[in-house]
Amino acid sequence: MVRVKLIGAGGYGGIGLVELLMRHPEASLSALVDVQGVGDKLSDMWPYLRGYCDQVILAPDSDEAKSVEADVVFCATPDGVGQLAAPSEVAAGRKVIDYSGDFRFNSVELYREYATRIARDPVHKAPELLKESVYGLTELHREAVRKARIVGNPGCFAIGCICGLWPAVKNGLVELQGICCDCKTGVSGAGKKPAPGLHYPERYDNSNAYRLTGHQHVMEIERELSDLAGKPVQVTFTPQIVPMVRGILSTLYGRLPAGVTHKRILSAYRDIFADEPFLKVRDFDEATGTSDVRGSNRLILTVATDERTGTFRVISHVDNLVKGQAGSALQNMNVMFGLPETMGLDLAPQHP
Amino acid sequence: MVRVKLIGAGGYGGIGLVELLMRHPEASLSALVDVQGVGDKLSDMWPYLRGYCDQVILAPDSDEAKSVEADVVFCATPDGVGQLAAPSEVAAGRKVIDYSGDFRFNSVELYREYATRIARDPVHKAPELLKESVYGLTELHREAVRKARIVGNPGCFAIGCICGLWPAVKNGLVELQGICCDCKTGVSGAGKKPAPGLHYPERYDNSNAYRLTGHQHVMEIERELSDLAGKPVQVTFTPQIVPMVRGILSTLYGRLPAGVTHKRILSAYRDIFADEPFLKVRDFDEATGTSDVRGSNRLILTVATDERTGTFRVISHVDNLVKGQAGSALQNMNVMFGLPETMGLDLAPQHP
Amino acid sequence: MVRVKLIGAGGYGGIGLVELLMRHPEASLSALVDVQGVGDKLSDMWPYLRGYCDQVILAPDSDEAKSVEADVVFCATPDGVGQLAAPSEVAAGRKVIDYSGDFRFNSVELYREYATRIARDPVHKAPELLKESVYGLTELHREAVRKARIVGNPGCFAIGCICGLWPAVKNGLVELQGICCDCKTGVSGAGKKPAPGLHYPERYDNSNAYRLTGHQHVMEIERELSDLAGKPVQVTFTPQIVPMVRGILSTLYGRLPAGVTHKRILSAYRDIFADEPFLKVRDFDEATGTSDVRGSNRLILTVATDERTGTFRVISHVDNLVKGQAGSALQNMNVMFGLPETMGLDLAPQHP
Amino acid sequence: MVRVKLIGAGGYGGIGLVELLMRHPEASLSALVDVQGVGDKLSDMWPYLRGYCDQVILAPDSDEAKSVEADVVFCATPDGVGQLAAPSEVAAGRKVIDYSGDFRFNSVELYREYATRIARDPVHKAPELLKESVYGLTELHREAVRKARIVGNPGCFAIGCICGLWPAVKNGLVELQGICCDCKTGVSGAGKKPAPGLHYPERYDNSNAYRLTGHQHVMEIERELSDLAGKPVQVTFTPQIVPMVRGILSTLYGRLPAGVTHKRILSAYRDIFADEPFLKVRDFDEATGTSDVRGSNRLILTVATDERTGTFRVISHVDNLVKGQAGSALQNMNVMFGLPETMGLDLAPQHP
Repeated sequence: MVRVKLIGAGGYGGIGLVELLMRHPEASLSALVDVQGVGDKLSDMWPYLRGYCDQVILAPDSDEAKSVEADVVFCATPDGVGQLAAPSEVAAGRKVIDYSGDFRFNSVELYREYATRIARDPVHKAPELLKESVYGLTELHREAVRKARIVGNPGCFAIGCICGLWPAVKNGLVELQGICCDCKTGVSGAGKKPAPGLHYPERYDNSNAYRLTGHQHVMEIERELSDLAGKPVQVTFTPQIVPMVRGILSTLYGRLPAGVTHKRILSAYRDIFADEPFLKVRDFDEATGTSDVRGSNRLILTVATDERTGTFRVISHVDNLVKGQAGSALQNMNVMFGLPETMGLDLAPQHP
Repeated sequence: MVRVKLIGAGGYGGIGLVELLMRHPEASLSALVDVQGVGDKLSDMWPYLRGYCDQVILAPDSDEAKSVEADVVFCATPDGVGQLAAPSEVAAGRKVIDYSGDFRFNSVELYREYATRIARDPVHKAPELLKESVYGLTELHREAVRKARIVGNPGCFAIGCICGLWPAVKNGLVELQGICCDCKTGVSGAGKKPAPGLHYPERYDNSNAYRLTGHQHVMEIERELSDLAGKPVQVTFTPQIVPMVRGILSTLYGRLPAGVTHKRILSAYRDIFADEPFLKVRDFDEATGTSDVRGSNRLILTVATDERTGTFRVISHVDNLVKGQAGSALQNMNVMFGLPETMGLDLAPQHP
Repeated sequence: MVRVKLIGAGGYGGIGLVELLMRHPEASLSALVDVQGVGDKLSDMWPYLRGYCDQVILAPDSDEAKSVEADVVFCATPDGVGQLAAPSEVAAGRKVIDYSGDFRFNSVELYREYATRIARDPVHKAPELLKESVYGLTELHREAVRKARIVGNPGCFAIGCICGLWPAVKNGLVELQGICCDCKTGVSGAGKKPAPGLHYPERYDNSNAYRLTGHQHVMEIERELSDLAGKPVQVTFTPQIVPMVRGILSTLYGRLPAGVTHKRILSAYRDIFADEPFLKVRDFDEATGTSDVRGSNRLILTVATDERTGTFRVISHVDNLVKGQAGSALQNMNVMFGLPETMGLDLAPQHP
Repeated sequence: MVRVKLIGAGGYGGIGLVELLMRHPEASLSALVDVQGVGDKLSDMWPYLRGYCDQVILAPDSDEAKSVEADVVFCATPDGVGQLAAPSEVAAGRKVIDYSGDFRFNSVELYREYATRIARDPVHKAPELLKESVYGLTELHREAVRKARIVGNPGCFAIGCICGLWPAVKNGLVELQGICCDCKTGVSGAGKKPAPGLHYPERYDNSNAYRLTGHQHVMEIERELSDLAGKPVQVTFTPQIVPMVRGILSTLYGRLPAGVTHKRILSAYRDIFADEPFLKVRDFDEATGTSDVRGSNRLILTVATDERTGTFRVISHVDNLVKGQAGSALQNMNVMFGLPETMGLDLAPQHP
């Protein structure tokens, strides 16, 4: 039984993990930690959890939170929190899985660049741990995750973009220059905090692009794709918000190299992902929508090459709160503790 | 007073025009024609119109419909209807504005290609009229529209894509090869007819791409852009449906030619559209969403060049039922009858 | 031309009036006043208004706001603001229409009771004006409104409940004891301020009752119904919020007095509202939804008596932002200034 | 292991059961039967089920469907289907759980009345089975369900209304005359078949009442309440549809008998439901919405007496597709086969 300490329990990323852990036969919740609702039950904050999860929320600095028996710590927290929390957790023998950008870049230089982009302190607070951290896109770094003490879970946008481009970038099926990621996210990606643009009347019949100067997920996408390609890859990234709650639909464009056909791309994707339990490949004429992954840990890629115009095109579908966040984090935990990778992640979702 | 005969009154395109005509001081509704609801009032079919428009729906072949006093006929009808109706209307001295693809291509050869794409009879039924028809993107063909007897109103996707690319294509601000149009439409674009994919429970938290083999609007986009560029332009077009009702958000990508900067693009767009009442240009950091054009005849273009990656990017916002359809049609009517172009189209919409 | 000063311009109630005023041939906006966005254009706060209303927002205490030429002042403000602003406005010869509860009760005793319920200072700040204030349910108090210097616009819930019960209560068509008002409102009724329960992900597939201990609109409903009945009437009121934006659906229940039939109720309602331009009566088998009044100043009442169980039942449909707020306020202005009552309020809304 | 045959697999009621069965450790799917999609996998019809449930759909009359090894048959079918299918299933030794009204009334006379109301053939096709059928509101008829061969699952509206009124009606906490059930349902209650009123653009910002002449669920509500009261009870029932997908919010009104207080009602409800795993009672000031039961088999009752007006008021929250349909059916199966009643029904749902 893997004993879990969850920091940031009260956000969407926290409750998403709580939901999944309850379905997991080999994990148990040791402690719920948050800065909000300390002393209350998690189910006071989230009444739908009454009777399912009535554990009391502990303050991060409380003795109880510090001394809890735990094998793994999930930091379902914003940027900046995990890097402060991780050193003592690792020192106490716990593995750490962080949801934010704190451990997605395993060098202080890269982190500095990232932090600067998001207007945060560029000096990482746990540089030694940073060096050994592993980027937690499980399918791409399974072996490293297996041995990791600290994993930086990917951004929700990044998962769909990287998986959607990986086979192409690695195998020369797309020109490396000129890749565009057009991503439409549901509103839950912005978290639970109310804001004018997420207010129901302002959002219900409205779609818009945002952060056109550069979303922070671009950097991890480019780092991974560059590693896969063996040379620098840059992407144009357009985050957009549409009036749905769960799901990211990412349409990935690039130029087709001479001679690369739809058939070849489809075949390459199918080969590479053949044994992946969560990555599914579909042809352009198989109808797919984000509701097909809603509530599941799956990521579906539709290969939709436009041979007429010489355009590479893959469409990626993911639930930002599951494969895009808590599901992916749990998948990493499974790998890190030698459990079957799909454990607790193999339930059919509810529809509609 | 321009007397209007409206064929296809009961669809979204029909009632959209009825709404606008009621605000128009120089137009009057002479006849409502449809194949559904004949003999009923339009307000029986659409109770929100009771007291506003209680005219009785006439059958297309009825004597009343044929002999009505009218100066202009709007065919708010699907492909194939307008080309059958137009000859007798024109012969009766009426101008015709058709919403479908029937008169968007002014040669039988181009029409044949279009009709084949949408699996319809490739032989146009009114080839003589077709030749003189004008593509009704008003801002681009204002003078021809002014003199036209028959206008083919643009497709809702096409309006946003063409206006968003026009200044760039015409002025060498984007490479002609590799243009991608990523378009997200609200559900009303599919019309009023129920279908499984438009059923509320299946649509409410779902986004998906469709017609990946080629949407029929591609052809008019490419024709217009090619004319502007003076050489063939092809585009990759990805129609997507998101759970909103009104609005199309189109993100348009291309490669930046050497030396072309954001500043130059922005400046070119602002110059070209400076006097256009309905086309608005904004810089990348001015927050804009489809709700900013909801209910209005405006089209807003956000210039969001990604100089870092050498990518041309413009984002277009349009209400598919107004500027994307009925509003554009009425704008053409104004031009054709020498009325102020904004007449009946200059009211602030309601929000939220 | 009626010159309008609008205090609270930036809320939904403010922009709703701005939208309507632009359609009004005999009114002009003299000043926009708000505590937020002072010095900015209204269209900076609300970009959909760019080009339609670019007036600059003035501070309430600014000399410009105070000395503006205006015939009428709308206080589209929360409780407590209008009573502070009204005296100087009235002294300056301006009529006042207030959206809040500040002038809905024309005695300091009643106001004290109301203010206590909503936990505000029970001492009214303009007791002399309060005494002469008129409750602005136009259809019920048309003559008094005509002569009024100060009008308290009804609450959005109250309008649907009072109009739905008025003919019955006045004519003995419902038992006075045991009336229940089951009201479902769209989210815009809560205003533009973000809050956890109005956050898109928390609201999109959720309906709930709230303020079960007593909503403040109950008091004006009971006061009006008691006046109509000539004896005290109490109602049970259940406010509920459903995931739509505009509209209130109120189902009004009571006991049928012996011998009162559906036919008689329907007939009474039709008679009483026969000449009302905005109040429409429908029989139980005429399908009606809130979308039939969306964007309009209409209120539709469906008479749906359940004779089998001896239950009086009327269902009321209203757009909370138009007839429920700004539309009603403008209707009052028309009456106060001797203009046709429907002026600026007779446009067909847009659908869908 | 209970072997399940599911007739009507492809509707919302069918896939809802499939989802739940996959979480059930002691049940297995023997056969999927439907009239649509015969020969296809269920996951062809519902791609979100790929890899979860790829069983092939059998025709009802096929030998495979008839001869399948099964212990229980669920008829997730419309009225009229189950009564034709049940006799041979029971003869083959299988227990039957029917979702429709076919077995909710255990006499041909009552069925005749019911069938007449919904305009169906009033002659029941399996009168002998009808007599022994049990109304499957588990909490009310647990012992009878335990021994039943055939169970008629309650209507989705009926579950919330009966449970919400049961303790009051049984214990004299509400006057039996004048009870009103004001019910707001999400759209999934209407099933998967597209229709104009369920078309996304027509439904998204719209709420309406329907079937005001009498919804068929009234009859089972009145039968159960009459049995509980020991004398005839009639209710006024107002079905309403609001733009959400899952959930029914029912506000139940009645007159308070003299001397009955909120405290007493609350206490009675808490006592009666103290040991019920799925029925939860809350006081008026505990915020609750339908999202608190979304995806779960729970039914939450908020006791919200209005002592001021002498009104009994209870608000019921249920997921129409779980406790309102498939969950309730599975709960009955658990009871019928001596399994723990909560088996397969105790997972936390996903939020938001």
